[in-house]
Amino acid sequence: MDELKQHWKGGPVVLKRQKSIAKDGYTILTEGGKSTITASTDAGLMYGAFHLLRLQQMGADVDHLNISEKPAYDLRILNHWDNPNGTVERGFAGRSIFLNPDAQRLLIYARANASVGINGTVLNNVNAKPEALSTESLQKAKYIADLLRPYGIHVYLSVNFASPIKLGGLATADPLDKSVVAWWKKKVAEIYQLIPDFGGFLVKANSEGEPGPCDFGRTHADGANMLADVLKKHGGIVMWRAFVYNPQSSDRAKQAYEEFMPLDGQFRSNVIIQIKNGPVDFQPREPYSPLFTSMQKTPMMVEFQITQEYLGAANHLVFLAPMWQEFFDYVKPGQVKAMAGVANIGDDTNWCGHHFAQANWYAFGRLAWNPTLKSETIADEWLRQTFTNDNRMVKPMTKVMTESREAAVNYMMPLGLHHIFAGGHHYGPEPWYAPAGVRRDWTPPYYHRADAEGLGFDRTSKGTNAVEQYPQPLSTQLNDIATCPEIFLTWFHHVPWTYKMRSGRTFWDELCHKYDQGVQEARQFLATWDAMQPYVDKQRFDEVQHKLRIQARDAVWWRDACLLYFQTFSQLPIPADMEHPVHNLDEMKKYSIRITMYENPPYGYTK
Amino acid sequence: MDELKQHWKGGPVVLKRQKSIAKDGYTILTEGGKSTITASTDAGLMYGAFHLLRLQQMGADVDHLNISEKPAYDLRILNHWDNPNGTVERGFAGRSIFLNPDAQRLLIYARANASVGINGTVLNNVNAKPEALSTESLQKAKYIADLLRPYGIHVYLSVNFASPIKLGGLATADPLDKSVVAWWKKKVAEIYQLIPDFGGFLVKANSEGEPGPCDFGRTHADGANMLADVLKKHGGIVMWRAFVYNPQSSDRAKQAYEEFMPLDGQFRSNVIIQIKNGPVDFQPREPYSPLFTSMQKTPMMVEFQITQEYLGAANHLVFLAPMWQEFFDYVKPGQVKAMAGVANIGDDTNWCGHHFAQANWYAFGRLAWNPTLKSETIADEWLRQTFTNDNRMVKPMTKVMTESREAAVNYMMPLGLHHIFAGGHHYGPEPWYAPAGVRRDWTPPYYHRADAEGLGFDRTSKGTNAVEQYPQPLSTQLNDIATCPEIFLTWFHHVPWTYKMRSGRTFWDELCHKYDQGVQEARQFLATWDAMQPYVDKQRFDEVQHKLRIQARDAVWWRDACLLYFQTFSQLPIPADMEHPVHNLDEMKKYSIRITMYENPPYGYTK
Repeated sequence: MDELKQHWKGGPVVLKRQKSIAKDGYTILTEGGKSTITASTDAGLMYGAFHLLRLQQMGADVDHLNISEKPAYDLRILNHWDNPNGTVERGFAGRSIFLNPDAQRLLIYARANASVGINGTVLNNVNAKPEALSTESLQKAKYIADLLRPYGIHVYLSVNFASPIKLGGLATADPLDKSVVAWWKKKVAEIYQLIPDFGGFLVKANSEGEPGPCDFGRTHADGANMLADVLKKHGGIVMWRAFVYNPQSSDRAKQAYEEFMPLDGQFRSNVIIQIKNGPVDFQPREPYSPLFTSMQKTPMMVEFQITQEYLGAANHLVFLAPMWQEFFDYVKPGQVKAMAGVANIGDDTNWCGHHFAQANWYAFGRLAWNPTLKSETIADEWLRQTFTNDNRMVKPMTKVMTESREAAVNYMMPLGLHHIFAGGHHYGPEPWYAPAGVRRDWTPPYYHRADAEGLGFDRTSKGTNAVEQYPQPLSTQLNDIATCPEIFLTWFHHVPWTYKMRSGRTFWDELCHKYDQGVQEARQFLATWDAMQPYVDKQRFDEVQHKLRIQARDAVWWRDACLLYFQTFSQLPIPADMEHPVHNLDEMKKYSIRITMYENPPYGYTK
Repeated sequence: MDELKQHWKGGPVVLKRQKSIAKDGYTILTEGGKSTITASTDAGLMYGAFHLLRLQQMGADVDHLNISEKPAYDLRILNHWDNPNGTVERGFAGRSIFLNPDAQRLLIYARANASVGINGTVLNNVNAKPEALSTESLQKAKYIADLLRPYGIHVYLSVNFASPIKLGGLATADPLDKSVVAWWKKKVAEIYQLIPDFGGFLVKANSEGEPGPCDFGRTHADGANMLADVLKKHGGIVMWRAFVYNPQSSDRAKQAYEEFMPLDGQFRSNVIIQIKNGPVDFQPREPYSPLFTSMQKTPMMVEFQITQEYLGAANHLVFLAPMWQEFFDYVKPGQVKAMAGVANIGDDTNWCGHHFAQANWYAFGRLAWNPTLKSETIADEWLRQTFTNDNRMVKPMTKVMTESREAAVNYMMPLGLHHIFAGGHHYGPEPWYAPAGVRRDWTPPYYHRADAEGLGFDRTSKGTNAVEQYPQPLSTQLNDIATCPEIFLTWFHHVPWTYKMRSGRTFWDELCHKYDQGVQEARQFLATWDAMQPYVDKQRFDEVQHKLRIQARDAVWWRDACLLYFQTFSQLPIPADMEHPVHNLDEMKKYSIRITMYENPPYGYTK
C-alpha cells in the first residue's frame, strides 16, 4: 500500500484478508518487529494502515500492538455546502475545492478523510441548485468520484426537489406523478452510468424556501420514498433532512418533531432522516433534538456542523469534540445510524481558515468512527500529528482545546441562551436585532425573551411545552426550574433576574460572571498559545496568535453587547467583582460587519 | 459680601480689616454662632469667605473655627493657550472662553478661580501672535480684566517678541535698540491706560520657532530685562519661559539648564523665569528640571500643565495633584516664587471636557495656595463639593483619583519612559514613529533608544551626563543604575532587557507587568465608577462612565502597542502570568487618529 510504502518507518507490514471482520474494521498485530493488518475489505486494510501511521506520528510504541477496530457507523460523511459558483455557504476558508477540481489537492483531501475514517462526501450545498444534476455537473462529480474512490470515499449529491421542473422542463415535481418518477429514474441511471458506486441523495425539502413534496400536497415521506425507490436498485440511499421551521410555529424548537413524528414508520429502509444535533440550529449549546429519542421506526442520522457558523467562524479557536460528546451524553450512539458533518473545508492553503479548525474535521472523523472517544484523546492525537510530540506543547494546548467550547458558550451564550446573533451574519452579537417586517423567529428577541421580569424562552408546560417532546424522567426534570440543568436554563425557562442559582448568586450576577469568565478564558488561551512559540513554526505561530487575539477581542465585544443590552431590562448593576464592560451600548448598536454568508468576518484594528 | 449673602447658611459673619495679616491671608474665628473673617485686603476677606463656603459645602463642622491661612505664593496664575481665532492649543474642552467673552460665564470663571485662590490669568497662547497687542485685542483684554477684577484676578498677556516689527512696523525687535524700547514703552503705557492693574507679560522666546532676543545676537536676559524695565514703573512683571531646545543639542533634557544657568544673576528683580516642572515637556512622569536646584540668584516659577496634553486629553481620568506633589518631593516649595498652570478650560458646558478634569483646575489652585496639601485631601474636598458628601462615593473615588496618575504612567510610560507618543498628536502610542526627515528629537526613538541590548536614554556620566545637572548626592544616586529610582530608570539609563529589578523580575518582565498593571487599574476605575450610580446624577454618571470606558480601551491600546513594539527588540516572551496583547503590531502601525492640537481625540467603536 502506497501510504505505508511512503510513510511507514517501522518493520515489515503484512496485509491479510479475512471475511469474518466487519466492514471497514481491521485488526493489527505486531510481534517480533512484524505487523499484520487484517481486514475483510480494501478499505479496512487502508484504515488499519492509517492507524499504524497515526501511532507512528504520535511517537507511540508500535512494537507490541494488538488492536481490533470497527467503526460505530457504516456511513461517516461530510456535507459540503458548496455552490456551483464556487462560494461555500458558511464557509470561512476560501472557495469551493470542487469548483475547478485539482487532482493533487483532492488527493490530499481524500487521504486526510481516509486517515480518520470518513467514507462519504456530499459535494454540493443542501440549498441545491437544479443544475447540480446537469450533465456537466455530473461529469465533474464523476471526475471527483474517480479521484476519491481509491480512498474508500463515496460521492453523494444534494438535490433540488424541483429539479424535474427546473432542469427537466416538467410541469410538476409531485413525487407521485409518473413523469416525475420517470425523470428521476432516468437521471439516476445517468448518474450510476458515470459513477457506479454513487452513494445517493441528500435532500433539504420544504425548508427555508427550498421546494419539496409539501408544495404538491404530499408528505416528506412521499418525497423521500419516491427518491429512495428510484435509488434502491443501484444501492443508493436518501438522506432526508428534518431541518424545518416556519413563522407560524408557536416554537421553532418544536417543529421538526411535530412535522416528522407523525411520519415515523412511513419511510423506506434506504431513507435516513438527517437531524441536526439540536432542535434549533447548530447553536453554541442546544439540548439534543427530541426526535432522536422519540422516533422508533425510522433510521436517523445526526448532522453536526464542523464549520463554525455560530462559533466564531474561522477566527475563533473552538474545538467541537466536547459539544458532540455532550450530544452523546443524552443520545446513545446506537440510537443513530450514521453521522454527517457540515464541512469547514475551502481552498485556503490551510484548508480550514484557522489552523485549529482542522482539529474539528479530524475530530468529526474520529467520533464518526468511535463516538465514545474522549475529547482530550482526540485533541492529544491531533496536536501530536499536527504540531509536535513535545508535551510542553501538547499538554497545555490539549487543555485549551478541551476548554474552548465551554469558553465560547460563556462569552457568547451562557446559561441556555441561543440565537442572539447579529442580523446578516452569525458572527457577532446583536441581541437587540428586531427590525420591523423581519420574521420574529429570525430575530434574537424571539429566543431570549428579555423583559423586566427576566430572561429566557418558557418552554415548560406553562409555556410552549417543548419539554413534553422529551422522554421521562428528563421531561419533568427540564420542566422544573429547580432541576433543569443550568446550562439549559434560559432555553427552557423564563428566568427571573433575581432567581437564586446553585452558586448562590442571582441569575443576573451569574450571567454577568459567565460572560466575563468567557472573556478571561479567551485571554488565557492567547497567553497559553504565546508560550508555545518555541514549539511551533513561525508562520503557524503568528497566524494562530493573530486569530486568538481576534477571539479575545471578540469575547469582550460579546460580553459587553449582551450584558449592556440585557441590563436595560434587568436594571441591575454589573457585579463589582468582575471586569466591567468597556464599550457603550449605543456605539455597539451602530456597529455592523457587512458580510455575506460566504465570507469569514474581518477584524482589523481600524474597522 | 455677595458670595456669603447668597450662599452662606450659617450664623452672622463679620468682616474685619487688620494690616498685620499677610497679603491674601486671613483668619477665621467662629464662636457662639458668629464668625469673624479678618484680613488686610479685600482679596483676603474674599478668600476667607470662600473658605467658609467650602467647609459648609463639605458638610464640615463650622461652629468652632480657628483658622489662619496665607498663600505660599503671591502669584497663582493660569496660562491659557488660547489663540485669536478661538482655538485652544492642547485644549480638549471646546473653544476659547475669551473669543467672544460672555459676562455671565466669565463671572463663573472668576468665582471658580477665586474660590481656590487663583489670582492671575494669562489670556492668550504663549505662542503669541503680534496681534495680541493690537488696540482691538487690548480693548477685549480690558473688558475681561474689568470682569475679573472684583475677584482679585489680574490679567496678563503673552507677547510675541517680534511685535515691534510685525505690529509696530519697525525694522528690528532688538531689545537694545532704542526705537524698540520706545515702541514697547508706548504699548505698555497704552495697556496700563486701559488696565491699570495689568499684571505683565509672559514670553516664550527663541523656542520652537518663536522669535526672541537671540535672533538679534542678544541673550534671554537682554530681552527679559528690557521688557521688565518698561513694565517696572507700572508695577508689571515679566514671566520668561525657560522652555527651549534645538535639534543640535546632544540631549534635549539638558538644554534649558545649559542655556539659562550662565544667565543666573543677570535678570531684573521683576523678571521670573518660568520653568516647566520637568526638563523635557510635561511627560506623564519626569524628574524635576535641575534648574530649580541650581539657579540661586534668579526668581523662578514652576509651570505645571493642567490640560492633559500628554495624559489622555479630556478622555482619561488622571488626577494630577500626585504628579505635582511628586515635584515638591524634590524641589522645596520655597525654592520657587510662584506657580503657573496651563489651563484646561474651554467653552464646553462642563468647562474642562471631562468632569474629573475640573479636579485638576481645583487642585492647581489649592496647591498654589498650599503646596503641602495632600492629594487625598484635595480629592476629598473636590468630590464633596462637586458630587456628594456620601462617603460611599467619596472614599472609593478618592482612591481612584489618587491612584489615577500612577495608573496612567503604568499603561503609557512606566519605568522612566517618555515622549513615545504618536506623530501628529500626544494622545496615543507610536513608539516606532520616526519618518525620514523629521527632527530626531521629535521622534520617540530619540527618547526610548530601544535596541537589542535594552531600553532607555543613557544620561549617566557615560552617556549625555545630564545627571551632572543635579546636585549631590542625588546626581550620584541617579548616575548608578543600582540606586536610581526605578520610576526614572529608562530616563537616565539604557537598561539591559534582562537587568534584575528590585521585584526580582527582569527589566523586560517588569516592563510588561507595569503596562498590564495600568490596564487592570484603568478597568478597576471603571468598575468602581459603575458602582457610583446611586450617588451621581444620570448625566454625569453616563458621561464619566463613557470616558472611563474609553480610558480602559486606550490602556489596552497603549500596553499592546508598546510591548509588541519593544518586543521586536527584546525578543523575549510576554510573561505567562499576565494578560497578553490582543492587538497585532502590524495593524496598530497602520492605525492613526488624524487630529490637530486643538481637538480632543475621538474614540468610537467603529473608528
